[in-house]
Amino acid sequence: MAAVTLRCPACPTDAAWDASQLACPRCDGLLDAAVDLPKLTHDIRPLIDEGAPGVWRYRPALALPSDVPLLSLGEGRTPVVELAAWGGGHGLSRCRAKLEFMAPTGSFKDRGAAPVIASLKAQGAAKVVEDSSGNAGAAMAAYAARAGLAADIYVPAAAPAAKLAQIAQYGAAVIPVGGTREDVADAAARAAQAPGAAYASHSRHPAFVEGTKTFVLELLEHGVDALPQHLVFPVGNGGLILGAHKALTELRQAGLQFRMPRLHVAQAAACQPLVQAFEAGAAAPVAVERRPTIAGGIDVAVPARGAAVLQAARDSGGSAVAVGEAEIAAARSALARNEGLFVEATSAAAFAAAAKLRAQGAIAAEDTLLIAATGSGLKDPPQPSA
Amino acid sequence: MAAVTLRCPACPTDAAWDASQLACPRCDGLLDAAVDLPKLTHDIRPLIDEGAPGVWRYRPALALPSDVPLLSLGEGRTPVVELAAWGGGHGLSRCRAKLEFMAPTGSFKDRGAAPVIASLKAQGAAKVVEDSSGNAGAAMAAYAARAGLAADIYVPAAAPAAKLAQIAQYGAAVIPVGGTREDVADAAARAAQAPGAAYASHSRHPAFVEGTKTFVLELLEHGVDALPQHLVFPVGNGGLILGAHKALTELRQAGLQFRMPRLHVAQAAACQPLVQAFEAGAAAPVAVERRPTIAGGIDVAVPARGAAVLQAARDSGGSAVAVGEAEIAAARSALARNEGLFVEATSAAAFAAAAKLRAQGAIAAEDTLLIAATGSGLKDPPQPSA
Repeated sequence: MAAVTLRCPACPTDAAWDASQLACPRCDGLLDAAVDLPKLTHDIRPLIDEGAPGVWRYRPALALPSDVPLLSLGEGRTPVVELAAWGGGHGLSRCRAKLEFMAPTGSFKDRGAAPVIASLKAQGAAKVVEDSSGNAGAAMAAYAARAGLAADIYVPAAAPAAKLAQIAQYGAAVIPVGGTREDVADAAARAAQAPGAAYASHSRHPAFVEGTKTFVLELLEHGVDALPQHLVFPVGNGGLILGAHKALTELRQAGLQFRMPRLHVAQAAACQPLVQAFEAGAAAPVAVERRPTIAGGIDVAVPARGAAVLQAARDSGGSAVAVGEAEIAAARSALARNEGLFVEATSAAAFAAAAKLRAQGAIAAEDTLLIAATGSGLKDPPQPSA
Repeated sequence: MAAVTLRCPACPTDAAWDASQLACPRCDGLLDAAVDLPKLTHDIRPLIDEGAPGVWRYRPALALPSDVPLLSLGEGRTPVVELAAWGGGHGLSRCRAKLEFMAPTGSFKDRGAAPVIASLKAQGAAKVVEDSSGNAGAAMAAYAARAGLAADIYVPAAAPAAKLAQIAQYGAAVIPVGGTREDVADAAARAAQAPGAAYASHSRHPAFVEGTKTFVLELLEHGVDALPQHLVFPVGNGGLILGAHKALTELRQAGLQFRMPRLHVAQAAACQPLVQAFEAGAAAPVAVERRPTIAGGIDVAVPARGAAVLQAARDSGGSAVAVGEAEIAAARSALARNEGLFVEATSAAAFAAAAKLRAQGAIAAEDTLLIAATGSGLKDPPQPSA
C-alpha cells in the first residue's frame, strides 16, 4: 500500500500521517488524508476487500495507515429503496433513498467514527474527546466502547434527551456546555489537549471523511451506472457530502470513468451559512443569524470544512437549498406515512430540499435521484403536536 | 415453483393457501405454510434470488404464493460481530451477535412483517389489524404504509411511549387496550373480522415465520460451517426462533447436510411460561403468574405457538432459561459499555441467558455461539436510575 499523508488544501504541502494532527501547522487549515489509489479501469473491484467487516470492505480506498485496526460494528452496506409513492407525489419518477439510519448507532456517523476511533487507538490514545449535537457523539462513544477507550462527549445543553441517553449508555461521560455550538467545540478541543486524550472530531478529523467515502463506494460496487444524476444530503458540517465528493474525485483521478452526480446541499432555513454563501458566490460559509430548528443535526452556523462543501456542490454542478420548518416536518411525516420510513427531522430536510429542487426545475422529472436518509426517527421523536 | 399449502401441525391435512386463514378449520390450531424446496446438495444457492430486495433474496425458500409482491424496506442482511470483550468476560471465547436491530423499524420483526403485509396486499386487504407490545406494531405499521394499506394497531395500555410514537408516525391508528396482553390480542382479532380488514398477527400469521426463516438463511449463505453450535433467542411469541427452526428443518429435508445448532429460549423470570414448561417436560406453555419486567417484548404469558417453540428447543438439543431483572439490566449495560451495542432490554435477556448457560455448563467455553440482538435500545431507553 502506498504511503498515507496529510495534505493541507490551502498550503500545497504534505506531511506524514499523524492521527492527532487535525490542523495545518502553517496556516491552521484542516487537513485531508491522501493516498494514491491503484489504477482503475472498468470498476472498483481493486478497492474491495471481500472479507473485511463494515467500512473496511473498501480498505484499499481509504487513506489510512496499514496499522489501523479494522474496528467495526457492522456499519455500512445500507439498503437503497425506491420511493415510488413519495417521489411520485413530488413529480420525481426515479427517486430512491439510501437508508443510512440502518447503522449500529442509528446514523451515518458510524461510517466516519469507525476509522477515527481506529486510527486514534492505533496511535495509543487512552481517551477520546468529541463535541456533538447527538449523532456523532453516540457514534464516537459506541466505537470508543468497542475499542476499549474512554470517551468524553461535549454536548449542547439543549440537545435532545434521547440522544444524550444513548451516549451515556455507551459509558461515555456526557458533558453539557451552554452557549453556541462553537462554544461546545472549543470546550472539547481544549479538553483534548490533556495527556492521553485525543480529539475525535467528526467535523475536523481527516479519517472521518475517509469513512464516509464508503457511501458512494457502495453504490459504485454495482457499477458506474448505479450512480444517480443527483445526490441530496442534509448538511451541517457536511461529513457525508464531503466523503462522497472526495471518493468521486479520487476515483476519477484513478481512471474510473463515470458521469459525476450533482451534489446538492440541504440546510434548514433557520441556519443556512452554506446556502447563503452558495447564492452569494462566496468561497466560505457566511455569518448567519440562527433561529430555532427541529433539524438539530444540521444546526451548525460555522461548518469547519464549509469551504470544501461549497466546492463539492459547485464542482459537481449541484446546488444548495434551504427549507423551512414546516416543509421539514411535512416531509418527515409524509415519508413515514407514504413509504414506511421514519427518519429524524435533520434527514427530512434533504427530502424537503429534493422536492424544492424539483419544483424549481433543478431536478427534472425523469432524472435519477438518490437522497441520504441519514438518521433514525427514534433518535429525535416528533412532539405530539408535530 | 411448487404449490404453497397451509398445514395444520395437529391435523395431518393440508389446505390451499389463504392469507386470511390463520387457524385450522378442524381443530383451531395455528397453521404453517408449506412448500417443497428444490433438492439441495452442498449449499443454499438454489434458494437465492440475487437481485431481489430484503428478505426476498431467499424467495425460493419462502412458502408464499408466486403473486405476492416483493414488498421491502431493505430488511435483513444484518451484520454479525464478534463479542471478544463481553464474551471473554463470561468465559465464552467464540461468541458473536447478529445485529437484528439494524432493521428499517429497529427490530427483527421487519423480516416477518414484509411477507405478512405483502401476502395480505396480494389478497386485496384494505386495512390490516395487529396487536403488539410495540416492535411488531411498528413493523406492521411501516410495511402497511409502504404497501398503501391502512393499519390499526392494538397496544397494551402500558406500552413504552417511544414505541407508540413510532407506530403513530407511520400513520397507523394506535388503540390502547387495558387488561392482559391476551385481552389486546382478542380485541385485535375481533376488529380484523370487519369487511376489508385482515389480521396481520406476528404471532399467528404463517407468513411471519416464513420471513424470519431468512435469519439462518443469511448465516448459511456463507456455508454450513458458518452455523454456530448454539443460537440464543429472546422469546416472547417466538417469531425468530420458530423461523430459524423451520428453515433448518426444511433445509435438512431438502438434503442439505449440517450439524443442527442447539436453539436456546431466553425468557424473563418475571414471565416464563416456556421455561417452566420446558423444565416440567410439558408439551405446551404452562400457566404462569406474571410479574413486572423491563423486557416488554417477551412479556407474553400465553405464546400462541408455544408448543412449536418447545419442540424447536427440544428437537435441537437446546434449552430454555429464565433470567432476572437485574441480570437483564446488567447485560444491557455491559453490552453498551464493553462492545458499543445499545440493545433494548428484551434483547439483553438473550445475552444474560447465554452467560447463564455458560455458567451452568450447557455451553462450553470453546463452543461457537451466536446471540440474536433483536431490538434497538433507542426503542426503550433505560430509566436514568437503571
